[in-house]
Amino acid sequence: MSTRRSFLGKTALGIAGTASLPLLGSALNTTKTASTLEGGDHPLNIGIAGYTFYKFDLEKTISMMKRVGVTNLSLKEFHLPLNSNAEKISEVKSKLKDAGINIYTVGVIYMKSKEAVDQAFQYAKNVGVDMIVGVPNYELLEYAEEKVKEQNIKLAIHNHGPEDKLYPSPKDIYDRIKNMDARMGLCIDIGHALRAGTLPEKAIREYKDRLFDLHIKDVNSSAKDAKAIEIGRGAIDFAAVIESLRKVKFQGVCSIEFEKDMSDPLAGIAESVGFFKGVMKG
Amino acid sequence: MSTRRSFLGKTALGIAGTASLPLLGSALNTTKTASTLEGGDHPLNIGIAGYTFYKFDLEKTISMMKRVGVTNLSLKEFHLPLNSNAEKISEVKSKLKDAGINIYTVGVIYMKSKEAVDQAFQYAKNVGVDMIVGVPNYELLEYAEEKVKEQNIKLAIHNHGPEDKLYPSPKDIYDRIKNMDARMGLCIDIGHALRAGTLPEKAIREYKDRLFDLHIKDVNSSAKDAKAIEIGRGAIDFAAVIESLRKVKFQGVCSIEFEKDMSDPLAGIAESVGFFKGVMKG
Repeated sequence: MSTRRSFLGKTALGIAGTASLPLLGSALNTTKTASTLEGGDHPLNIGIAGYTFYKFDLEKTISMMKRVGVTNLSLKEFHLPLNSNAEKISEVKSKLKDAGINIYTVGVIYMKSKEAVDQAFQYAKNVGVDMIVGVPNYELLEYAEEKVKEQNIKLAIHNHGPEDKLYPSPKDIYDRIKNMDARMGLCIDIGHALRAGTLPEKAIREYKDRLFDLHIKDVNSSAKDAKAIEIGRGAIDFAAVIESLRKVKFQGVCSIEFEKDMSDPLAGIAESVGFFKGVMKG
Repeated sequence: MSTRRSFLGKTALGIAGTASLPLLGSALNTTKTASTLEGGDHPLNIGIAGYTFYKFDLEKTISMMKRVGVTNLSLKEFHLPLNSNAEKISEVKSKLKDAGINIYTVGVIYMKSKEAVDQAFQYAKNVGVDMIVGVPNYELLEYAEEKVKEQNIKLAIHNHGPEDKLYPSPKDIYDRIKNMDARMGLCIDIGHALRAGTLPEKAIREYKDRLFDLHIKDVNSSAKDAKAIEIGRGAIDFAAVIESLRKVKFQGVCSIEFEKDMSDPLAGIAESVGFFKGVMKG
């Protein structure tokens, strides 16, 4: 039992030491890693969305990620500015790599101009990821698609709830990209989705062919103005979410984004990571 | 969904506000609370074993319990000495009550003399609990049984692993108390049990008629010298443990005892609580 557990702990859950993230070389990638082949249940990779560490520098961010044993990071620009030079990019990448942390994507990056689209794709290329989590204005979607094709970098568009003028719910993204290149897709934020009236477990199934990334969180109700809360204490049915992710054989990362107690988030991050892992084991 | 979740969050899991602990008035008590009647799955009460907070005073203990949303405490003597006077007892009880924390038992209390047995039972009576988690010397078991009958206070004997000269494994307790009063029973420490070669999910079923309390933890292997680790990262099969607890309809408290990072345990406690709750939901 010890051996099996150890294997699961170190690979399937993407914790401790090296990352187990399947290669995301293409939107249609279905590479099976050791972790995804193990057992009858489909294991899911866990990550953390950089915004969680809004109030912390890179060193403290690394320290907290190591503490909770999560190695996949969606890098946010306050840890590496979008206009960083090669030296700065190399420095940040080295620090994270030395800590055993894998930058699996960058974002959320807002794109309100062609220049911003150019910058985002150059940034992703320089950082060495094959996916951007971003929010392009509607009129820039075609231009963004050109960049996706040109650079073979996926774009996962992020929904931000009822207040979001562009993409309040996953459907607002899907309907706009479903006929575009297959590397145009979604980062479904399950908390914002629920506040916008969309059950995340349903959206995951409906948009599975374009689901590249996830922001995993909980909210204290399904109301529009619901607040962030530790995963498991709120309104989201995580057993149903995980069932859907397994059903669609989601190969990406479930990035926990914790937006409560942002000046002292470690306990809430830890509880959230623990709960999510627990539901997978239950 | 929100309503159902809210209900579960506040009552079945024993978090937030008031405690949902079933009355433990008798060893044979099978009182069904609202929480235990809810849904097909048998919900389990969560608590924390006071030893977790060995390095912290009562205020910091309360603060950490509130942070992780757990309200049931097994009170340890460093937060209320065994020889405390009525005033001191009243002060500690008030502080915990005001914080919404329920003292559901006291211990672990070691009993190496008749005087120690007397003191433990007097202490439990003064604190107002109906159960002691304790470790009486073999030659004191009959005397302890007399006190159990006299005061109608249960005694849950704690196993402490391979190094323990008295009760290394749950069987070492059960075999000695199985023919005694039905209020003589076990507090199974699942981590120490595993280190002693006993699968906790098996022990729970075997000793169900005398299982009064649990110390829930994880260990990094099943070896004798295995170390404490966050729940879910180690060798214990929590899905199996929870399945057994539901099978035997365990009515007591699952007290998390976190013994790693004892100078800075909050993150590990939070992850452990999250994982345990998650497995229940999975």
